[in-house]
Amino acid sequence: MRDSPFESSDSVRSAAPLRYAQHATFAQPLPLELGGTLPSFTVTYETYGELSARRDNAVLVCHAISGDSHVARHSEDDDPGWWDLLVGPGKSLDTNRHFVICSNILGGCRGTTGPNSTNPHSGQPYGADFPAITVGDMVEVQRRLIDHLGISTLRAVIGGSLGGHQALTWAVRYPDRVRGCVAVATSARLTSQALAFDVVGRNAILHDRGYRGGQYYDRGEGPVVGLALARMLAHITYLSREAMTAKFDPSRLRPKDIPTAFEKKFSVGSYLAYQGHKFVERFDANSYVTLSMAMDLFDLGDTQAQLQTVLGRSQCQWLVISFSSDWLFPPEQSRQIVAALIAANRPVTYCNVQASGGHDAFLLEEKLSIYGGLIRGFLAHIDGQPATVRPQAALTTSADEPTNIFHGHRLDYDMILQLIAPGASVLDLGCGSGGLLARLRERGHSRLVGVELDEHAVLACAEHGLEVVQTDLEKGLSPFTDGQFDVVVLSQTLQSIVDTEGIIDEMLRVGRSCIVSFPNFAYYKIRTMLFEQGRSPKAEGVYPFEWFNTPNRRFPSIADVEDFCARKDIRTHRKLYLDSETRRWITDDPNRNADVAIFVLSR
Amino acid sequence: MRDSPFESSDSVRSAAPLRYAQHATFAQPLPLELGGTLPSFTVTYETYGELSARRDNAVLVCHAISGDSHVARHSEDDDPGWWDLLVGPGKSLDTNRHFVICSNILGGCRGTTGPNSTNPHSGQPYGADFPAITVGDMVEVQRRLIDHLGISTLRAVIGGSLGGHQALTWAVRYPDRVRGCVAVATSARLTSQALAFDVVGRNAILHDRGYRGGQYYDRGEGPVVGLALARMLAHITYLSREAMTAKFDPSRLRPKDIPTAFEKKFSVGSYLAYQGHKFVERFDANSYVTLSMAMDLFDLGDTQAQLQTVLGRSQCQWLVISFSSDWLFPPEQSRQIVAALIAANRPVTYCNVQASGGHDAFLLEEKLSIYGGLIRGFLAHIDGQPATVRPQAALTTSADEPTNIFHGHRLDYDMILQLIAPGASVLDLGCGSGGLLARLRERGHSRLVGVELDEHAVLACAEHGLEVVQTDLEKGLSPFTDGQFDVVVLSQTLQSIVDTEGIIDEMLRVGRSCIVSFPNFAYYKIRTMLFEQGRSPKAEGVYPFEWFNTPNRRFPSIADVEDFCARKDIRTHRKLYLDSETRRWITDDPNRNADVAIFVLSR
Repeated sequence: MRDSPFESSDSVRSAAPLRYAQHATFAQPLPLELGGTLPSFTVTYETYGELSARRDNAVLVCHAISGDSHVARHSEDDDPGWWDLLVGPGKSLDTNRHFVICSNILGGCRGTTGPNSTNPHSGQPYGADFPAITVGDMVEVQRRLIDHLGISTLRAVIGGSLGGHQALTWAVRYPDRVRGCVAVATSARLTSQALAFDVVGRNAILHDRGYRGGQYYDRGEGPVVGLALARMLAHITYLSREAMTAKFDPSRLRPKDIPTAFEKKFSVGSYLAYQGHKFVERFDANSYVTLSMAMDLFDLGDTQAQLQTVLGRSQCQWLVISFSSDWLFPPEQSRQIVAALIAANRPVTYCNVQASGGHDAFLLEEKLSIYGGLIRGFLAHIDGQPATVRPQAALTTSADEPTNIFHGHRLDYDMILQLIAPGASVLDLGCGSGGLLARLRERGHSRLVGVELDEHAVLACAEHGLEVVQTDLEKGLSPFTDGQFDVVVLSQTLQSIVDTEGIIDEMLRVGRSCIVSFPNFAYYKIRTMLFEQGRSPKAEGVYPFEWFNTPNRRFPSIADVEDFCARKDIRTHRKLYLDSETRRWITDDPNRNADVAIFVLSR
Repeated sequence: MRDSPFESSDSVRSAAPLRYAQHATFAQPLPLELGGTLPSFTVTYETYGELSARRDNAVLVCHAISGDSHVARHSEDDDPGWWDLLVGPGKSLDTNRHFVICSNILGGCRGTTGPNSTNPHSGQPYGADFPAITVGDMVEVQRRLIDHLGISTLRAVIGGSLGGHQALTWAVRYPDRVRGCVAVATSARLTSQALAFDVVGRNAILHDRGYRGGQYYDRGEGPVVGLALARMLAHITYLSREAMTAKFDPSRLRPKDIPTAFEKKFSVGSYLAYQGHKFVERFDANSYVTLSMAMDLFDLGDTQAQLQTVLGRSQCQWLVISFSSDWLFPPEQSRQIVAALIAANRPVTYCNVQASGGHDAFLLEEKLSIYGGLIRGFLAHIDGQPATVRPQAALTTSADEPTNIFHGHRLDYDMILQLIAPGASVLDLGCGSGGLLARLRERGHSRLVGVELDEHAVLACAEHGLEVVQTDLEKGLSPFTDGQFDVVVLSQTLQSIVDTEGIIDEMLRVGRSCIVSFPNFAYYKIRTMLFEQGRSPKAEGVYPFEWFNTPNRRFPSIADVEDFCARKDIRTHRKLYLDSETRRWITDDPNRNADVAIFVLSR
């Protein structure tokens, strides 16, 4: 067994040149957050599309730990970009509409000043003398670049993973310069598990004998084993277990025969060895140590209250996206960000995209239609000039279809609209693709937020510029704070929630007033059907479901709900009853004659 | 930065001596599965308790990758054992009842022949010349030890993780010598994700310059960095993310000040460094490489059919235990084992224990009451001489309480018993703590298996020697094969399952005949209550739940279920109707006059 797993020693730091890269050099010293200054620095960046005359269409893309400025191809014969899927003419981040900027981050090794840059004081590479930096320092460098480009306000900052940390930092540090923030697969700080993997990776690099205290540039091949090990390990954390099973289980004992002295007994081993080698060829170990430490130190607050204070400094609109199989930046971390933004009354749309790709999902095609669509829709509405991204007919897509005893139209919307005072803030639970919210928006309201579980409905909301937070109502309304909304609406959804007490308690906590519309299962037709025929009520068009496939889980009568409220000391301010077939208000024996009830509740 | 993170170089392989260890040396050569032989070998082992006169109470405990023969203390002043929680006088693995044997595995470094043993051919340690071994080789060595101890049949083999691999191998390789197999937190083979972590760990060791091709014993400190890195990495995989968050988040930037040159910026870093150092002091790097490769090569089959063939060779009773937060040996891998055993008609009890401790959960106290109880109950019944481990009253614990319109007693059991032919094999879905199964057992049946979700109910079944497989009925009956049982019973559970069609389809697939008992929601009292009072039916003792907290999800009448069967081409062989209040059979208008129906169905 040789000490080095590498076939040749000339493998280091020979990545392909960036043909379209531009460079800006700043002679002013850069003070650093953890102390010290950089006497000067260079930023390498690429741009796509045209800056508008009003200079208001710039979108800054922030890259993750191993990325660079080359976010997308500039031409057909250009090298692939790391986010070609998303960025380009006509794509979700449409370079025909937006002026896209992506710069290599401070501490990187692809043109922007980093450990492999020349230290002007010594004339040698910084190496391990490169100062410790933070995500804040990276953002400060980006801010100077944006100034240099003559842009005062960014339409949006967008980033995934460590790029998301930069986007978050932009939003809270320069609130008047960011109109939209898109935080993808990211967190307010790393989990201890993610931190632990980084620690092991750095130890592998720093204790590789080739590291030589960080001054390895002209002395041998450098810490190539340590850097390759760090990359192999990190690579595992970017994939989901299910994705690895699908990719490597069928060929477990048939590895690719690649030139390496790393173990290649298993297919996953040869794959990791290949990834390790490839990374060592294009990345600098000191950069990896510098950037991963900056990521590990990133911390917007270890309590929800701190997070709320920090994120409350932002003034922008927010789009937060997580992926269900991402275990490195798990969805609950995005939910913490969302909860803090909501608590701080910041506008935010959130979706946890169902995807198998793990942390890498934001770079994969699997759910591009969802996350790309969310980004496209979000960007289209940032300027308050919504561009139609789908026909308005989408407002009546399947997510709005009746799931109950109703007809196809939503009669209760008319009534609910009348019950909501002008200008009130409204939270609509189970908002579907935003039908009620869209009608409220036409009237003008202080704040309108939807809650919905279905990701396609969330996407439809985002495409219409509606603010929606993906949440499972069975799990309560934890992102929302006490008394945060004037009105909380639960229209025709009560009966499909198992935890009735939970959702009612939560509504009364979050809303000063709550509107609940529900079908009356003691409606005379239902009673009669059961009494006379002994059958679960069903009628074409009216009660369209079978007993075994109805989405309903609870079957209360009006009297049952009244009794429930009385026993729970819930005040019922108004009770409205309707026969939805005849479209008439019911006053006589509503528990028999109304098929729909609307209650206005409070504590 | 020093190359070595270690304070001194005399740190290697100085673990405390095992005071109670015994040694057996075998002069016969040991042929190895992957080729070659060991000319002779020594096994180091410890025993606890007394071998019975009939030599029928021996339980072999197999240890995991970093374990040894010292499974428990022998006396109060003895060093702690690695499974003291479970093994000892009066404990779940009760050394007052069982003769417990634990031997250091082949390839280990705590007494049994391994890479740090002297190669008789050279007079030097084997080092990297130690041959590649398999889990089968480890078991062969254990088998020779058992012969040496004069034991022909083991009451049980038990092991977690790699120890579970050994237990599985025992059961299929020596089916006539194992009466019970307890496979804990294990798998038929590693996930590709787990394999990948092992690959990175081995690469860290093998490419540490201190490794010196494996002949490092008298040459410096050995691959201490690589071995420590491998251990740090493995340690992360033994913990759940939530456990790491709880342990390290509060002290993130307050690491312990331990003597190490590994990174200790973060609390999790100092912890991992400590674990790395501690491991290097007691473990040999060549052993780690040898054992982790044996684990990675362990593979009972990559298809469910292969697994069924292999596990079908076993003749023992099985207990399979997984832990919900174990992501290294995830529960679905235990379910694959269980499904293969069931398909091969092997008796198996399975429980996925809800625990936060990750893979380590089987070594932690958190859920000892469940997993320890399962093991205790399982062992008590292996000999067909059940020792009462709880009062028989446990058979009517809360898990059997009515969740429906029934009175406290289970009248339907009497009827169901009459419908089941003597000797028939029966699968009881939603079996609770086994009331119906226990009554069937009294009559004698070819095979009785329960399905239950609640882990306490599963435990109660195990304590009564009943075979039960923890399964969520909403997810179907995938562990069971087509036509596997004469009768599948779903008693008073249909109405609490959302996926009615799914469970009925699955029952008809698995059972030649299916018995479904359900409450009739068109019973005249229910009809009248809704019709006259307009209220969800509720009456003290009879229908004890409120509309908002009933466990019922579906509310069919007898006529609805009849119609359902007709439309789905399901044959109804028998239909019995009962008024459970008067305990009378109903023949006149059962859809009005019966509150309980029992249907016998088939395709």
